Amino acid sequence: MTMTDVASPVLDELAAVLTAAQIVTGPRTESNRRDQSEGTLSGEPLAVVFPASTEEVAAVVTIAAAHRIPIVPQGARTGLAGGANAIAGAIVLSTTRLKKILSVDAANQTATVQAGVRTIALARAAEAVNLFYPPDPGSWRASTIGGNVATNAGGMLCVKYGVTGNFVRQLTVVLADGSIVKTGQRTIKGVAGYNLTALLVGSEGTLGIITEITVGLLPAPASPSGVSATFSTATDALAAANTIVAGSRRPSVLEFLDGACIEAINAFDPASALPRGAGALLLVQSDQIGQAHDDVEAYADVLRAAGADDVVIAHDAESLDRLMSARRLLHPAVQAVRGGCLNEDITVPRSQLPALLAGLAEISRELDVPISTGGHIGDGNLHPVIGYDPAAPAELEAAHVAFARVIGLAISLDGSASGEHGIGVLKRAHLDDELGPVLRDLQLRVKAAFDPLGILNPGKKL
Amino acid sequence: MTMTDVASPVLDELAAVLTAAQIVTGPRTESNRRDQSEGTLSGEPLAVVFPASTEEVAAVVTIAAAHRIPIVPQGARTGLAGGANAIAGAIVLSTTRLKKILSVDAANQTATVQAGVRTIALARAAEAVNLFYPPDPGSWRASTIGGNVATNAGGMLCVKYGVTGNFVRQLTVVLADGSIVKTGQRTIKGVAGYNLTALLVGSEGTLGIITEITVGLLPAPASPSGVSATFSTATDALAAANTIVAGSRRPSVLEFLDGACIEAINAFDPASALPRGAGALLLVQSDQIGQAHDDVEAYADVLRAAGADDVVIAHDAESLDRLMSARRLLHPAVQAVRGGCLNEDITVPRSQLPALLAGLAEISRELDVPISTGGHIGDGNLHPVIGYDPAAPAELEAAHVAFARVIGLAISLDGSASGEHGIGVLKRAHLDDELGPVLRDLQLRVKAAFDPLGILNPGKKL
Repeated sequence: MTMTDVASPVLDELAAVLTAAQIVTGPRTESNRRDQSEGTLSGEPLAVVFPASTEEVAAVVTIAAAHRIPIVPQGARTGLAGGANAIAGAIVLSTTRLKKILSVDAANQTATVQAGVRTIALARAAEAVNLFYPPDPGSWRASTIGGNVATNAGGMLCVKYGVTGNFVRQLTVVLADGSIVKTGQRTIKGVAGYNLTALLVGSEGTLGIITEITVGLLPAPASPSGVSATFSTATDALAAANTIVAGSRRPSVLEFLDGACIEAINAFDPASALPRGAGALLLVQSDQIGQAHDDVEAYADVLRAAGADDVVIAHDAESLDRLMSARRLLHPAVQAVRGGCLNEDITVPRSQLPALLAGLAEISRELDVPISTGGHIGDGNLHPVIGYDPAAPAELEAAHVAFARVIGLAISLDGSASGEHGIGVLKRAHLDDELGPVLRDLQLRVKAAFDPLGILNPGKKL
Repeated sequence: MTMTDVASPVLDELAAVLTAAQIVTGPRTESNRRDQSEGTLSGEPLAVVFPASTEEVAAVVTIAAAHRIPIVPQGARTGLAGGANAIAGAIVLSTTRLKKILSVDAANQTATVQAGVRTIALARAAEAVNLFYPPDPGSWRASTIGGNVATNAGGMLCVKYGVTGNFVRQLTVVLADGSIVKTGQRTIKGVAGYNLTALLVGSEGTLGIITEITVGLLPAPASPSGVSATFSTATDALAAANTIVAGSRRPSVLEFLDGACIEAINAFDPASALPRGAGALLLVQSDQIGQAHDDVEAYADVLRAAGADDVVIAHDAESLDRLMSARRLLHPAVQAVRGGCLNEDITVPRSQLPALLAGLAEISRELDVPISTGGHIGDGNLHPVIGYDPAAPAELEAAHVAFARVIGLAISLDGSASGEHGIGVLKRAHLDDELGPVLRDLQLRVKAAFDPLGILNPGKKL
């Protein structure tokens, strides 16, 4: 049986439950084949579908299950691990038409949205009733809540508030057989049966298709104050960060850039004018009601005492925006270093950060690859970026060798190959080392309990 | 085959891996048959064993699996839902000898303990290095961390800090076949594969036997200030609590007692001298660094503006202790009302609290049973207690009818029959209503993925 044999009846069945505008086939599927990861595999899907309700998602999954065709759920494709990449012959299920904010419940401090709602739209809807949705992945202006839940996305504010999963209360999910269930509770406590909500968070579309999400919200924080500081060595910056984390004041942001990041940002946009030759930069914020100003002054004292060279404080929104603008250039700047880049996303216990940075420097030197490292140092979550020239196959190869060594380094330091971006297809090969055979087998049994036919985003995550 | 036929070889095998002092059989098992729930079933176990290491737990589970004998894990038996009750012919596996604090890692703000360590011992170990383990179930002086994790226990501080599960980073678990795995990460972020750690939290010993736990710790908070206030009606108290929750100041404690609780406490200990005839009492605390004093003065203003009759503020430890002492008598006081009691543990969205209290009053009136209701109102988690005279079978029967009606009431208000005490055996019958058939079937498949022989605490949780 060839793909064409299958295709026609399946497309007919899809056409019976969706409008023509909701089904895309052929070359026009090109734009839905990949997320933003480089070097990850993808294939030509049978179709890309755009359901607009949970019931339409269920109808699509029912058809896919009947024909045993893989389904790849896809949000805004801002991922960096290939988790939403199309698979040859699969149905790509885009959530971009599931974009209704269903309710914002100020009394219970919750909001319920469809999976395709953009992160920024949820954050703004919460702000409108003086509430706060903290998770802020770097792509939050484009990314969908569904994608954030599927990858358990993090962000700069997670050092204080936790990752996406910490805010998820309920999920409406289409299971692999097309049935619709609602997991979790609207309340903070209370779970009937096992905590399937927590299991679905971060499952990258392999256990079910999430169509609606209820999140908990917090009272609005204070307008943040912030401080930046440069250090001559990364070691000094790490020591300063540790002092801040150990203190009783809880920073809402604690970000680190190494010397290579600083150099890349200055090269990318000379107007950034970060201090030349600095070994590292820290950015610290507080949004604590009634304390943000004092907190940041205290952080500045800590940074100076730790040997900071250049301490800049911002107590108003405009100065703070200036302070943070260089950090926002990080991603394009490090990509521009060699034209191509592989993005790592690793976590280690904070006490292992000096060893991690030393190990990264060694890998960079031994393999002669540029590695720039920045990230959420308060969480021990760093993003080493390995540059390569896309026109030089030897550089890409060296970058891949370096990529694997960095993961091995993180695991050897009691850390993880995963952070806030998911596993996707990019890191599957490294998962076995981290899990070991018994735990991997258990994970596969859990997958089979949810998806006995193996049609939900196969070849991803596990 | 009778139990005696099986017993002898099993006991011989247990004796080969444990010392004689670690195996208890016959009438001496009596003290390990039940938790603190009333009216729940239990049976005579084959043996109670007291392993002292993860390896000994694994050896016991391997023997049980070979003979397909159920295993009931048991902590300090402070549970209120029968989750740790013995099953006839089962091996009861007590974790009380797993009581080592393995490490407190101040740099990474984590602690690793064996499952039988008491909650208070972990909290004190954290305090010793100026860190903080917030979850504070009412039984925390006696309860074990393993039991807290197995039931995802809550407590008074959870309104600000979240439940036990929010602090669990890694678990060492003996699976149903006796293999040993470690789930999760020492870091805040980063999960390889599915989040089995979150799935195991609250699984009440039905998915694996938890032997070691790594928890995240926080910097120590401020010494708390507190305020208590009485109201002529529960409605007024609820309105005041809602105002506090909606504000930007985050209370570390927000507790509610209804008029029946106040009456019971005054009857139990006249020295409590709570205002006679009050319809409700609120207790509010703040432990925010640099703000606790101001927060509590602001809370007092809110309470007065909401019509509080009797507002008492405490800014030092001794006065605060006096303020909280009546609350601590709640459990024995409500039990003393009729001699026996059934303890509910329900959650509803906060906006449904007035409807919940009205419904409880109606059930109490219609069935002529005393119901006193107190609890963690900031979480929507209340503990209605239904009194009965143990010598009057009709009262026990009426209490059970009321118990089921209260659960139905919570579910009808978009809430849950579960809160912070687990499901155990007490609430299994009500779970189907809450889950529905599709979700229940999925839960059973997850259970089978972990425990294909069904030997882990059968008849509990699901």
